[in-house]
Amino acid sequence: MTATARGPLAALRDLLGPQQLLEDAADVAPFLADHRKLYQGRALAVALPRDAREVAAILKFCNDARIGVVPQGGNTSYCGGATPDESGTQLVVALRRLNRVREVDAANSAMVVEAGCLLAQVQAAAEAADRLFPLSLGSEGSCQIGGNLATNAGGTSVLRYGMMRDLVLGLEVALPDGRLLSTLTALRKDNTGYDLKSLFVGAEGTLGIITAACLKLFPAPHSAATGFVGLRDPAAALALLTELRAASDDTLSSFELIPHSAMTLTLQHIEGCSNPLASEHAWYALVEFSSARSGDAVSLRLEAALADAHGRGLVEDAVLAQNERQRAAFWQLRESVPEAQRRQGFSLKHDISVPVSRLPQFIARASAWAEANVQHAILVAYGHAGDGNLHFNFSIATGEPETALQAQGETIRRSIHDLVQEFGGSFSAEHGIGRLKVAELERYAPPVELALMRSIKQAFDPNGIMNPGKVLAR
Amino acid sequence: MTATARGPLAALRDLLGPQQLLEDAADVAPFLADHRKLYQGRALAVALPRDAREVAAILKFCNDARIGVVPQGGNTSYCGGATPDESGTQLVVALRRLNRVREVDAANSAMVVEAGCLLAQVQAAAEAADRLFPLSLGSEGSCQIGGNLATNAGGTSVLRYGMMRDLVLGLEVALPDGRLLSTLTALRKDNTGYDLKSLFVGAEGTLGIITAACLKLFPAPHSAATGFVGLRDPAAALALLTELRAASDDTLSSFELIPHSAMTLTLQHIEGCSNPLASEHAWYALVEFSSARSGDAVSLRLEAALADAHGRGLVEDAVLAQNERQRAAFWQLRESVPEAQRRQGFSLKHDISVPVSRLPQFIARASAWAEANVQHAILVAYGHAGDGNLHFNFSIATGEPETALQAQGETIRRSIHDLVQEFGGSFSAEHGIGRLKVAELERYAPPVELALMRSIKQAFDPNGIMNPGKVLAR
Repeated sequence: MTATARGPLAALRDLLGPQQLLEDAADVAPFLADHRKLYQGRALAVALPRDAREVAAILKFCNDARIGVVPQGGNTSYCGGATPDESGTQLVVALRRLNRVREVDAANSAMVVEAGCLLAQVQAAAEAADRLFPLSLGSEGSCQIGGNLATNAGGTSVLRYGMMRDLVLGLEVALPDGRLLSTLTALRKDNTGYDLKSLFVGAEGTLGIITAACLKLFPAPHSAATGFVGLRDPAAALALLTELRAASDDTLSSFELIPHSAMTLTLQHIEGCSNPLASEHAWYALVEFSSARSGDAVSLRLEAALADAHGRGLVEDAVLAQNERQRAAFWQLRESVPEAQRRQGFSLKHDISVPVSRLPQFIARASAWAEANVQHAILVAYGHAGDGNLHFNFSIATGEPETALQAQGETIRRSIHDLVQEFGGSFSAEHGIGRLKVAELERYAPPVELALMRSIKQAFDPNGIMNPGKVLAR
Repeated sequence: MTATARGPLAALRDLLGPQQLLEDAADVAPFLADHRKLYQGRALAVALPRDAREVAAILKFCNDARIGVVPQGGNTSYCGGATPDESGTQLVVALRRLNRVREVDAANSAMVVEAGCLLAQVQAAAEAADRLFPLSLGSEGSCQIGGNLATNAGGTSVLRYGMMRDLVLGLEVALPDGRLLSTLTALRKDNTGYDLKSLFVGAEGTLGIITAACLKLFPAPHSAATGFVGLRDPAAALALLTELRAASDDTLSSFELIPHSAMTLTLQHIEGCSNPLASEHAWYALVEFSSARSGDAVSLRLEAALADAHGRGLVEDAVLAQNERQRAAFWQLRESVPEAQRRQGFSLKHDISVPVSRLPQFIARASAWAEANVQHAILVAYGHAGDGNLHFNFSIATGEPETALQAQGETIRRSIHDLVQEFGGSFSAEHGIGRLKVAELERYAPPVELALMRSIKQAFDPNGIMNPGKVLAR
């Protein structure tokens, strides 16, 4: 603790009470490093407010004292968006105590939840009311809905249900100057002025702290059909995607692409996994239909669509999950890719998207470049192909020196992101900017767009206290 | 033309060429009055730019000269949002010459269109590529997509496909200072900074002029099932809505509520209409499933769901359209309500929404109030009940003096909107603010929300040239 920090800490203790402020190094430590261990920060302290009014009071205090505030949910950011910098002057505000499900209104297909609720908790509360909250991603057992909101989280059901921004009806937000914006509307239609809600969602805590949200719910699924498909190439995957969208009446909820390399890594590193198909294929897809109706209608429909595609040579092989255990096994193959990459060792990650129609050409161009230019590495390009979103990653090859791949990191990122730009794509499809990609945003965003973002930041947070150094460069 | 206006007009002529500027009173007249004849404005002139760069150049000029700019699409605003004020100092910028469909990418389910395209033209271009652009509303033959974007238009397919904001992937926008924001991205996922797109959509031209957009497309429907249902009360309608959402796998595209009064007015005023049911009911609903697959699966499914609801007494009577002609006749009953109201004479309109679950209680309370307090009028509360959105209108009763209802207008609006507020609803669900509802927004929006909107307006349009007096009070 610096000498200048003594004043604000005492004041924060008075404001919150000692139980709501962590100051001991051991207590604070878990809040200082990000999920991927990219950054190791320091902090003035960690505040644990219990409700929205306390969050607002903290912001007012920090705004007056010009103290930087770093909101933190489940601390699962892939871009260092939720951890403080190295200065030791920033206050972490952890939302975990705002963890109530305030209301579930099944007849309006909506629920009001506080920012600190775990995503899994939100899903369970919806399920208890025979409804679905569709956001689904690997870290759902530890990430918090406030973080999902702040980063406009994506995941495996975007194809049917959209990103987090599409799933929000209303927000409660503590503003930098201590005012509380309370528009927890549960309305499907409300055309009364500018869409502030969409601005806070995805702003990564740089404009205010989301303290609660009214979320959209959907009819609960009562049956599902999950297929695992062997494919020749990404062009065949794209053709299959188009056919399955139509065959499912656009209720296709997942279309995940897995390359041979990812399958190999997963079978090697993750115990209990096996290839559900009889032989190996260059590409695999995990596809899922779900239905609010029970019975086998979606299974029959998916089976017919895959059989038809197989008959025409579009699909090399396919199998349908025969029970919940098989379905879980298919999903484990997909969800284990990040862990398999982790166990393989050092990796470079690129969370990119391009227009769905250009995905095959992009994969061809980027793979050819990697083949010619990247040594010591395995290309692992997998993910949400139905949305045009791939995690275009590289893992260190077995027995190769990690430092060699590390040394190439900057060159590889630049080449991949330049190619993404050429294809009209995004260098951050779902993981956001955080701290990691601030320079990329400066590089690739049109200057006019950046200028407008800065003008919004300036208007909402003139003292720049909100999550400083994230999203926008100072 | 005023003396002070001569300077700017000459400069605009130089900037655009004489063919792109209308100055004669007869040429300008159609741009001065709104669709509902609520306002009769005057204008400096009408500019007819041919592309986005000309739009930007006009804005730069007007910004430098502090001339108010009023963007106009199809001039179908219900709130006077697209017409100039009475000062004669504002320049109307009509977008009709920006009317190209730039690209249809069926494999990406996206298209790029210019702001001046008619909505019907956009729908047709999608259909030609075996895709659906789902926005659908009464004025689709004359409204322009730029106006739909600027007002975040709704309509009859919101239940399944969302409002206009949900249908946009990217935008091209001319900013007040003449810069062009060009982010016509065709990406499903792009988490790189603040969501500027959602801010311009629904801003009604007060932050800039949308010149083009990349829109989402969906699999084209190849079969549909349309039912006309007789219901006891709105509670039964709500229960049926929930059941049909689940029975349709959430592909229920329309759920429109029509009260007995609206049916009566329509049968009386619109030639060729008839009640498709054998007897009269207190309420009717028009419901529609559609499918990307051909065949009778959706018909069978809707028939089964309605038969089941009828068996349990939830539905009093129901009939399915047996062919396209019958389907059109059902829709004509719904779409003719505004015209029937128009022919009946003077009316008061309230475009309100409440949470879907609270709709029955709201209708009961508001109807009881109207019964006790509104003389000389027929209550016509109809519309998009599936979204919680009703057009809670009053028509002058036959033979009653219009002036009597006119005199009550302010009292009625205040009572209805106050009740909407009590129910957590919106006083403008889909028609926006325009000029008509500026005072309502001042009255009902939380002050914090208004302050944030003003700060955005100030940041984007510091000289206040964009559609002055619309959305936000000066």
